[in-house]
Amino acid sequence: MPDTPSPNPTLDEAYIATVRDLLKEGRQQALAEALADLHPSDAADLFASFTPDEQVTLFSLLDRETAADVLVELDRESREDLIDRIRPDALQSTLAELEPDEAADVLGEMEPDEAAEALAGLEDRSEIAELLEYPPDSAGGLMTTEFVTVPEAATVREAIARARGASETAHRDYLYVTDTAGRLVARVELIKLIVSPPETPIRNIMDTDVHAVPVDMDREQVADVVRRYNVLAVPVVDPQTNHVKGIITVDDVIDVADQEAAEDMYRLAGTGATDPLHQPVWKRAWLRLPWLLITLLPGFLVGQIMRWLGYDPGGTTALLLFVPVMIEMAGNVSLQSSTVMVRGLAMGDLRSYRLTSILGREVAVALLVGTVCAAVSGAVGYIFFGHDTGFAVVVAFSMLCGVLSAAITGTLVPLGCHRVGVDPALASGPFVTSLNDIVGTLIYLGLGARLLVLFH
Amino acid sequence: MPDTPSPNPTLDEAYIATVRDLLKEGRQQALAEALADLHPSDAADLFASFTPDEQVTLFSLLDRETAADVLVELDRESREDLIDRIRPDALQSTLAELEPDEAADVLGEMEPDEAAEALAGLEDRSEIAELLEYPPDSAGGLMTTEFVTVPEAATVREAIARARGASETAHRDYLYVTDTAGRLVARVELIKLIVSPPETPIRNIMDTDVHAVPVDMDREQVADVVRRYNVLAVPVVDPQTNHVKGIITVDDVIDVADQEAAEDMYRLAGTGATDPLHQPVWKRAWLRLPWLLITLLPGFLVGQIMRWLGYDPGGTTALLLFVPVMIEMAGNVSLQSSTVMVRGLAMGDLRSYRLTSILGREVAVALLVGTVCAAVSGAVGYIFFGHDTGFAVVVAFSMLCGVLSAAITGTLVPLGCHRVGVDPALASGPFVTSLNDIVGTLIYLGLGARLLVLFH
Repeated sequence: MPDTPSPNPTLDEAYIATVRDLLKEGRQQALAEALADLHPSDAADLFASFTPDEQVTLFSLLDRETAADVLVELDRESREDLIDRIRPDALQSTLAELEPDEAADVLGEMEPDEAAEALAGLEDRSEIAELLEYPPDSAGGLMTTEFVTVPEAATVREAIARARGASETAHRDYLYVTDTAGRLVARVELIKLIVSPPETPIRNIMDTDVHAVPVDMDREQVADVVRRYNVLAVPVVDPQTNHVKGIITVDDVIDVADQEAAEDMYRLAGTGATDPLHQPVWKRAWLRLPWLLITLLPGFLVGQIMRWLGYDPGGTTALLLFVPVMIEMAGNVSLQSSTVMVRGLAMGDLRSYRLTSILGREVAVALLVGTVCAAVSGAVGYIFFGHDTGFAVVVAFSMLCGVLSAAITGTLVPLGCHRVGVDPALASGPFVTSLNDIVGTLIYLGLGARLLVLFH
Repeated sequence: MPDTPSPNPTLDEAYIATVRDLLKEGRQQALAEALADLHPSDAADLFASFTPDEQVTLFSLLDRETAADVLVELDRESREDLIDRIRPDALQSTLAELEPDEAADVLGEMEPDEAAEALAGLEDRSEIAELLEYPPDSAGGLMTTEFVTVPEAATVREAIARARGASETAHRDYLYVTDTAGRLVARVELIKLIVSPPETPIRNIMDTDVHAVPVDMDREQVADVVRRYNVLAVPVVDPQTNHVKGIITVDDVIDVADQEAAEDMYRLAGTGATDPLHQPVWKRAWLRLPWLLITLLPGFLVGQIMRWLGYDPGGTTALLLFVPVMIEMAGNVSLQSSTVMVRGLAMGDLRSYRLTSILGREVAVALLVGTVCAAVSGAVGYIFFGHDTGFAVVVAFSMLCGVLSAAITGTLVPLGCHRVGVDPALASGPFVTSLNDIVGTLIYLGLGARLLVLFH
């Protein structure tokens, strides 16, 4: 009997602890049994709690079919790590279990020569090779080739025979109807085959509203079509011949919709347009840095504009000219961190991480970008304030502190809100910004008042 | 033969112009024919180009089934407008065409007494009334009650008979298997009924991994379950009895995923957590105002902190103390506008609006919030700068100008990027912020230098 589950029923702390113990004791048989009933999505989540080497052991104990699904469900970074560590023949037998479009997705991420080697041993290699030709974010890159067509002249009986004869993994909620030249003309719903007498011509029950998309359509537009017409799948056609090349199912479209929304959020926040939670620290820093540097320079320009307009108070009070850039940077850094947290919480991506690890990684990213921004700020400050080393040190050091404190609040406030049941998105935006403004100003001007005494 | 469509194939300018002409000439027969082949989603988009009164005419010319679907596809504001204008019997006959969950959604938005009146005339009113009891953002509020169950002891032949006998609109991609006490035990895929011999016991082909969700689960968690397990539908059960109360299909979940992502984005940007493009100007202003006021006060506090730390340059140069709050507000306002644009573009919601209308509405919102913020800023400035009217006027007027210019850049930059094929999200964040910082500072301090001469 099914439980009414929490979103992730099987992956509780006790279960993870059991797996950890069995791993340590090397009890492979018991471990294989413990893993046997795990859904692939849950298994992929479980992997996040273990080291790469332990993952290899766990992976080898899954049955080949589950292992293949786990490979697909893992985030890209973990998948690449795992593929690097397992033996080529284990990889081959896993890939053989995948549908051609999934195999193409995995191979498309690998080094070209390794992918070519793995591909060579696969049964449906020509199909996979063809799929690899399409750009990953086109309809062709998203589609699966496991679909069923039926000739326009067929009867329900013949269509049912076709559906029965197709591969078990083929999508058969819709069958696609083609004319004698192989061109797509309509689709027929599986249920209509069941409710119609066997001799009914397919023509009488088919639906010509197929909402076909061309192979080169952008995946975002494909998502738009599926969303718009509430269909379970859309056929992908060659725009010249109107032959069906594949289909895109609604579950792939949800992933696209989620990814596109995340991409927009990350881009608005300037965190680089990828999957920040699963990237190594240096890469996250590298992707965020350009957006911070882009706002750093106009920030200093604002200080210069103040001076041009005749607002230079002179002396220590000249530090006021850089308050805007300090506040601006703290705002950007905390928006980057809080956006990653809010999106990660919404997508359930943070479930398998510990708080200290999340915070630690965000702080490490902040240390890297903060050091670069501090160096730039110090240099600009040195020139701006008449080659005064004291000013330069205050500006650089405050920049580093401001970036660090912004990253910490930007990470902790959304996570804290989530824990106490307040919507993290609602609280994070304005609250975090204001907090950072005040803290940033206190650090900068407070430090300034004290540090400059030492230098002068 | 199907075309390979652009995302919205039928709704070109020429078609809209034709409909407009036919409407003007009052040629109802020709108009009905022009509307006949329109998909409900496209018809709903078409309505956006016409006045409420014209919409009533168009609505009356659609066949009842299409009209019902159009009512569901319209945005909430337009739907409420339309319902207010059509005759009660037209509304009744439209509602009768809807599935119970859709009817409940429409009725749930209406005034309680009007909803009760409309409900009284409907055939499946008890079912709809039950659905109305569930909160709109729970699993119960999202589910449809048109599903098919089959007893555990049945054979494939009996299950097929059940599927055949069900309502045409029922979802039958999965059938739900119950025990003798009516409790959910498993699901069976429709295709398995087709590929299995008629006398096969359902027990042999059913799948006990049903991923049931309780009626009171939050819709965001439901979306998580569907996304996670790649299913076409999840059953919704009473957590006490484990009886199936309804099902939630994947197309409803896409909408949830999109809405939740939009909600998070709007919340991070502080625009109020609803559907900003389809709300009247005053409401958009009202929803954004709290977030602006919340950041306004800490912004002034930063100025005060500067003074406490001993950084008051005095004279006209004291205007520097409010540069942070000016920049902060411009940043918030432009983030609000650009987030609404970026999300609107991504969801295709802006397709049916003209540029001047989008910009005009954003500027109107900015005028409203800008006036309130200017008044508050002027008052704070008056007190802050020793009851000096000149300072107060400069602060208030600059705040208004800064908010207006931020709304304009925040609207035009994403739309401009979209037009020239640059990702609006990518360009909007850092670019718009920097632009506003510089423009805001120039306005505030430039105006200050000139205006204060007049007052002193």
